[in-house]
Amino acid sequence: MEIIKATSTKIKDVDFENLSFGAIFTDHLFECDFINGEWQTPTIKPYAPFLVDPSLKVFHYGQAIFEGMKGYKDENNDIWLFRPEENFKRFNKSAERMAMPEVPEEVYMNGLVELLRIDRDWLQKGKNHSMYIRPFMIGTGTGVIANPSNNYKFMIIMSPVKSYYAGEVKVIIAEHFSRAANGGIGYAKAAGNYAGQFYPTNLANKEGFQQIIWTDDATHTKLEEAGTMNVFFRINNTLITAPVSERILDGVTRKSLLDLAKRNGMDVEIRSVLVDELVEAAKNGSLQEIFGAGTAAVISPISGFSYKDTYYELPKNENPWSLQLKEELTNIQHKVSEDHFGWTFKV
Amino acid sequence: MEIIKATSTKIKDVDFENLSFGAIFTDHLFECDFINGEWQTPTIKPYAPFLVDPSLKVFHYGQAIFEGMKGYKDENNDIWLFRPEENFKRFNKSAERMAMPEVPEEVYMNGLVELLRIDRDWLQKGKNHSMYIRPFMIGTGTGVIANPSNNYKFMIIMSPVKSYYAGEVKVIIAEHFSRAANGGIGYAKAAGNYAGQFYPTNLANKEGFQQIIWTDDATHTKLEEAGTMNVFFRINNTLITAPVSERILDGVTRKSLLDLAKRNGMDVEIRSVLVDELVEAAKNGSLQEIFGAGTAAVISPISGFSYKDTYYELPKNENPWSLQLKEELTNIQHKVSEDHFGWTFKV
Ligand SMILES: Cc1ncc(COP(=O)(O)O)c(C=O)c1O
Ligand SMILES: Cc1ncc(COP(=O)(O)O)c(C=O)c1O
Repeated sequence: MEIIKATSTKIKDVDFENLSFGAIFTDHLFECDFINGEWQTPTIKPYAPFLVDPSLKVFHYGQAIFEGMKGYKDENNDIWLFRPEENFKRFNKSAERMAMPEVPEEVYMNGLVELLRIDRDWLQKGKNHSMYIRPFMIGTGTGVIANPSNNYKFMIIMSPVKSYYAGEVKVIIAEHFSRAANGGIGYAKAAGNYAGQFYPTNLANKEGFQQIIWTDDATHTKLEEAGTMNVFFRINNTLITAPVSERILDGVTRKSLLDLAKRNGMDVEIRSVLVDELVEAAKNGSLQEIFGAGTAAVISPISGFSYKDTYYELPKNENPWSLQLKEELTNIQHKVSEDHFGWTFKV
Repeated sequence: MEIIKATSTKIKDVDFENLSFGAIFTDHLFECDFINGEWQTPTIKPYAPFLVDPSLKVFHYGQAIFEGMKGYKDENNDIWLFRPEENFKRFNKSAERMAMPEVPEEVYMNGLVELLRIDRDWLQKGKNHSMYIRPFMIGTGTGVIANPSNNYKFMIIMSPVKSYYAGEVKVIIAEHFSRAANGGIGYAKAAGNYAGQFYPTNLANKEGFQQIIWTDDATHTKLEEAGTMNVFFRINNTLITAPVSERILDGVTRKSLLDLAKRNGMDVEIRSVLVDELVEAAKNGSLQEIFGAGTAAVISPISGFSYKDTYYELPKNENPWSLQLKEELTNIQHKVSEDHFGWTFKV
């Protein structure tokens, strides 16, 4: 690996108690180019703009994938990652679906570890802080013909973040729009999946809802994801979430919460929840909680949902499972409590 | 409009008889940035790379749309566009769906005309040549949070091309993969739609098929598009193509061919064609032709299709409608024959 150190640091200008999510980046980035079939020398270098051709493939045909993961610093100033191999594997699953080259494991993992070590001062101690880490890859070939790029750029950039609280989240269930097709790319963390959600989400925002619960595009009867998170329902003291599929991202938070819930002795079911079932459960009082799960917010409790112009307010819980599970997961991630699962990875 | 002329030209290095599609670009490009809610000064300047931040929104969340259109030079050295207002309108339809700002008509049209005038020497006379024109827009804000960009770059770049012949095209009908969801972005020329096709198309290529005929993702029974083209079927001397929809791009070539065919007195039907109907027609001999229609290739005749591991070879036609319609359309575009429809636009 080639390492080019920045000659000065931007860290002095950063107010770590007032960070907006994903807006500022550390002093360095990791980069590895794939040129004509070969991965080039992995490099860490100062975070800086780079030159691109106007006919860059990613601008025209959208070959772009990413991951989202976090680093944490414990009380001894040690840095930890959470299940990084899960993100690595998912990255290459996304790469395959988007006809991009798979990134070698040592390129991905060494880049991650070395970058975190070099910019370690950017990661603050304690449960209020973490480092949001963004590995991504784009097609960097040129030309306006719709075929796969021959060149690619893999990068890792990092942004220090505070723990994320989205405020009260009201959602609307998708009756027309959708985020994924059968036989499509919904299970990949492909850039295009996200841009497609913005317009329907803007419409939802205008009606007073922060997010959309996505349904299957063919029938709009199955509840699939909430915004850019997996979604959980607590009905009759059973925690339910949809199985992952071609249309549903295999979230690391989702699968970790399932394991935690089982360990807690909570009843867990992995199956599709139908919109009708949810409405019925809201009406008869058996619906206790809905929450989204993802790396950025960990868990995002949902206070109510709208469907066919009716708003269903959820009951207030004294001791919601969402907060209980969030606390447990965050404690493991920050090395505050014991990691019985072997999920944490020392940098 | 600000105009910064290139100090030298690359045209001397170009062999106009040996061009690969979309690979080289003219001396200038058109650019207009949208910054914090306002379109900035439209500019023509030398074609050159530009600087981007690693956290550029388009790399992470895929806000990117484009158009594909062509310019033609007639025997008097006049330059013509084909129905440019159709591409302009579709561009802004794509922009809306991807939560991007609409480009003002005068920015789009003046940019197009002025750029063609400045680089007019790059467009060769005659039916073998045209200028492929690529307007596109990308999200140029920064930050790794999944929401719409606040800044955008609209650009037009141009590539001189020869008339395009794809060779013999065999297709396979999609039984599993798909390009568009109900309530999705299939009708937009959004970059992400194209990257999603590469992997299934690579698989098809390996089996000896150049393209995929896409079917609806819910049932895989309706024939929708061929590769990145609209698709036509000639069955029992009737020309049939699917109605445009949320999943099917409203192609300019498609709608022009429909008008031409009607004017020729050909029977035309706009309706879904089912896979079963196609197989049946192939078996009983009533299937005469299949062809794709789009700006790049104009018309691309298909020689046979595969479905559920059976290959159906199409009959050879003495006087196929595909070639007849292609000839008529190309003659109008190049101002060789009269334009009864008012489709051509003088630059
Ligand atoms: C569409 C979508 N679903 C679910 C998730 C949650 O995945 P993870 O828990 O791995 O962050 C993400 C990413 O955060 C996502 O983009
Ligand atoms: C998906 C898709 N379908 C159809 C077409 C044909 O459209 P047009 O005739 O306007 O080029 C295109 C663009 O060429 C396309 O990208």
